[in-house]
Amino acid sequence: MDIQVKLQALGWTLPEPVKPVAAYVPVKQAGDMLYISGQLPMRGGKLLATGAVPSAVSVEQAGEAAGQCVVNALAAIHAHLNGDWSRFMQVVRVGVFVQSDNGCAGQPQVANGASELLAKVFGEAGRHARAAVGVNALPLNACVEVELTVQIRV
Amino acid sequence: MDIQVKLQALGWTLPEPVKPVAAYVPVKQAGDMLYISGQLPMRGGKLLATGAVPSAVSVEQAGEAAGQCVVNALAAIHAHLNGDWSRFMQVVRVGVFVQSDNGCAGQPQVANGASELLAKVFGEAGRHARAAVGVNALPLNACVEVELTVQIRV
Amino acid sequence: MDIQVKLQALGWTLPEPVKPVAAYVPVKQAGDMLYISGQLPMRGGKLLATGAVPSAVSVEQAGEAAGQCVVNALAAIHAHLNGDWSRFMQVVRVGVFVQSDNGCAGQPQVANGASELLAKVFGEAGRHARAAVGVNALPLNACVEVELTVQIRV
Repeated sequence: MDIQVKLQALGWTLPEPVKPVAAYVPVKQAGDMLYISGQLPMRGGKLLATGAVPSAVSVEQAGEAAGQCVVNALAAIHAHLNGDWSRFMQVVRVGVFVQSDNGCAGQPQVANGASELLAKVFGEAGRHARAAVGVNALPLNACVEVELTVQIRV
Repeated sequence: MDIQVKLQALGWTLPEPVKPVAAYVPVKQAGDMLYISGQLPMRGGKLLATGAVPSAVSVEQAGEAAGQCVVNALAAIHAHLNGDWSRFMQVVRVGVFVQSDNGCAGQPQVANGASELLAKVFGEAGRHARAAVGVNALPLNACVEVELTVQIRV
Repeated sequence: MDIQVKLQALGWTLPEPVKPVAAYVPVKQAGDMLYISGQLPMRGGKLLATGAVPSAVSVEQAGEAAGQCVVNALAAIHAHLNGDWSRFMQVVRVGVFVQSDNGCAGQPQVANGASELLAKVFGEAGRHARAAVGVNALPLNACVEVELTVQIRV
């Protein structure tokens, strides 16, 4: 699979891996599992949207931002695999943290921006367990943060 | 083990698996590990309680809701195992997100509604590592969301 | 490796394992993975700091508290391994929940108090995937909670 072609067909661009904003690594491997650090919706060095849903960022905007988080995670995996996606097996778990106003209930819709993109890119292998919750604050005031766990062939 | 009988003896009913509210799957398997998606306290198609602890939902109510989340997770595992609980090994990790008023400190008591039920159902195999935190917003305005990681025989 | 000597050289003391504040276990093993329960910044039976960042607790204080959470996690691992750190392989994932004022963006700096300590103690093996988020409430009104996933030799 050519992940770059696949993403392009869906309207996305695989970026250079985003550097962690602090003292950790983008991907850590344990056996056949890859743990991807929480990704922010950076595109071209800037956050797509900042602030809470829905007062500062609409559910639709945050959903697109969640898609960008996934694309950034794929860039980190791409680098870890040296571009060899034949080793990719499946997405296992996705954690989605949505910066939310108190009592906002729209986290599933926002998180679908991540989940649906993974399903489009990988088909059945992209389907995953998920936990989506609201939080009142995120790094860099991002509207969403997404972390992935992925299984590969070793 | 007959999980239905066991739960009934504890005053709970194993429901039909709750459908994910969005584009993901209830259970994803990687090797001998099952990752269960974040469960809401749905019973008979309705949430047991909505809003934040303690202003809208008491710690006791939220604890019972956390128990319902666990029961719903068990229903998802039951479906994944086709009812064959001889393959169940142990609960590994439980993540509990409690919708909380600012500075509310009662998450451990709420999360005990999940943890104590697992211990009653599975004994030593039900004891788990846990992270319990407060959040200001959850899907469908639920008062609590619980995710599980479980090990099975393969 | 003598973890006690190592920590002492860095200005920390390995405590007795902190008892869980509720119905769960400090460490759960599944195969070669250890899941460490969410740790609070307890030192000598008291929390280092309580309340939200930055209104009640500065980023610097919360960063030190995150370091204490890590030390408490190491105490739990120490007990699980009966002190035999030759079985330790690597830190895999760190989850950091920072009690934050709405829109506070300082979670990465706080979480670095955990990440940098792990890097100092274990070198490359201490580097990990990380998710750091803000939340509006934590158990015992702690300013930070840290959970770890660690790989060992079996």
